[in-house]
Amino acid sequence: MGLAEKILQGDIRAAARLMRDVDDGFTSSIDELKQLYPHTGRAYLIGITGPPGAGKSTLVDQITAAYRKLGKRVGIVAVDPTSPFTGGAILGDRIRMNRHADDEGVFIRSLATRGCLGGISRSTGDVVNVMDAMGMDVIIIETVGVGQDEVDIVRMAHTTTVVMVPGLGDDIQAIKAGILEIADVFVVNKADRDGADRTVRELSMMLEMGERAPGEWVPKVLRTEASRGVGIDELVAEYEAHRAYLHTSGDIHRFNSEKNSTILMEMLRDRLFRDIYGRIASNGTLAEILSGMSARETDPYSAVDAIVARYLTGADARVAG
Amino acid sequence: MGLAEKILQGDIRAAARLMRDVDDGFTSSIDELKQLYPHTGRAYLIGITGPPGAGKSTLVDQITAAYRKLGKRVGIVAVDPTSPFTGGAILGDRIRMNRHADDEGVFIRSLATRGCLGGISRSTGDVVNVMDAMGMDVIIIETVGVGQDEVDIVRMAHTTTVVMVPGLGDDIQAIKAGILEIADVFVVNKADRDGADRTVRELSMMLEMGERAPGEWVPKVLRTEASRGVGIDELVAEYEAHRAYLHTSGDIHRFNSEKNSTILMEMLRDRLFRDIYGRIASNGTLAEILSGMSARETDPYSAVDAIVARYLTGADARVAG
Repeated sequence: MGLAEKILQGDIRAAARLMRDVDDGFTSSIDELKQLYPHTGRAYLIGITGPPGAGKSTLVDQITAAYRKLGKRVGIVAVDPTSPFTGGAILGDRIRMNRHADDEGVFIRSLATRGCLGGISRSTGDVVNVMDAMGMDVIIIETVGVGQDEVDIVRMAHTTTVVMVPGLGDDIQAIKAGILEIADVFVVNKADRDGADRTVRELSMMLEMGERAPGEWVPKVLRTEASRGVGIDELVAEYEAHRAYLHTSGDIHRFNSEKNSTILMEMLRDRLFRDIYGRIASNGTLAEILSGMSARETDPYSAVDAIVARYLTGADARVAG
Repeated sequence: MGLAEKILQGDIRAAARLMRDVDDGFTSSIDELKQLYPHTGRAYLIGITGPPGAGKSTLVDQITAAYRKLGKRVGIVAVDPTSPFTGGAILGDRIRMNRHADDEGVFIRSLATRGCLGGISRSTGDVVNVMDAMGMDVIIIETVGVGQDEVDIVRMAHTTTVVMVPGLGDDIQAIKAGILEIADVFVVNKADRDGADRTVRELSMMLEMGERAPGEWVPKVLRTEASRGVGIDELVAEYEAHRAYLHTSGDIHRFNSEKNSTILMEMLRDRLFRDIYGRIASNGTLAEILSGMSARETDPYSAVDAIVARYLTGADARVAG
């Protein structure tokens, strides 16, 4: 029996194995992912992002516990695009594994690298699909940091949570502005700290300034103290409210269609590049171009024209790029 | 006379025009970039990154003034991948323009979007090439934030500066760890603030922990107060020391060759994707695939297989991806 079949029958070790195969770039893993695909699209995806130190991991633990109490199975994908440097995601994985180690209703996976078969959001999408096909009801995608990669990743979720924390100072304003528009829910965590009221007030003011169509979703600013479990039930209720909104408003269709398009585009981009790169690397074309560039005799624009003319069917080299 | 010729003769308005054409996605701009390419590779590139609020813009102004005193022409590229949200780069552009408006030896350009013809680092590379061909001696590439995009961008520079500031609290540790390995020079700006000693000490300790080969460059931690011009001459001296190191050690060859490879790969990736995307979007293939994905009848992995088999010469659809 193949990995996909085993996964569909609930074999957790097969799921872990497939995710590792995807990471390691085994092309056989693509066949398994193809088989799983018709069984995806059922899980509810929650994205969580925010600056380092905001307490996101603790919050994810608490949300997980709350959904477990409701009888839901929970998948967690912790994504750290920077962790070739920090090793952060792997560490977080170990800590969390301890807490949920005995719970078969929780499946945790860290993504610490950009992956062999494409970008980090591609890898995240593959892992989410495996968890979805496994029958996880809720999948939480957590990122470290608030860079563009992270924004792209959490946007894959149905509901995006931006976690803030009091007392990061005025310098955090720039970050706030940058992620204001992706949040469906704001959480001010560590809400017992000095300055929590101010952070809540500032976020609320920024939200009021945004223009919205009638009936459009208005993000709330919720307070939590994740370490003591305060505010978690309210947060989960807000998730369920947003989920209901997506369906009653019909936004879910636009969301799904945009998401499918993004996924397809990213896969196509990676695949085309890897295919052509493999050819020019092995037949000496690449070395020749790079040597010409070093001497400033070949420019990369013309080199790319030539590659396109040679490897794409009916390509028109005049389509500059 | 074409734009490229005019630029090579020192026409600043032609340079501004070409950069705008590149932004707007005019394919004619590629022909101009091809003509400029043989005249690039002479400028010294300085990258500057660090968290929001670290005072990077003021620092860049002071470095610019210092190089102007040495008789060098200075180009500045301010890159803000997040500014579709914040508008930050554009604002910064206007503020700085005032200061250097009358100085023909300074050319400033902000990049606020990912650009039409590719990613943000591709756009940055194009702008740097234009400034290089214009005869700018020093080109400063400044980013907001410290995300992966920014790291990729500042790595294009010969010398990478990471700017820190005292008093961002323990939460900044994660950021520090993430960018430690890309810095050739550390700057603790606003060094008159409380906690400056501690920040310098922490950075120095982290640097001491790193392993280095004999003779390898050891980054220094410098203090500046950019708003008062304190520490700028020492910083410029350090830049010149690193530049000299690159040449005496021979590292410059490895640097150039890696950079050329990165540039070529990114252009190739963008071009292949845009070419094929244009075809499947206009002939209905894309709409058909997306409709199949919505119904979970088509999986994106197989769809990409089919596209590759159809549009790449001699492609082998079994090469999964």
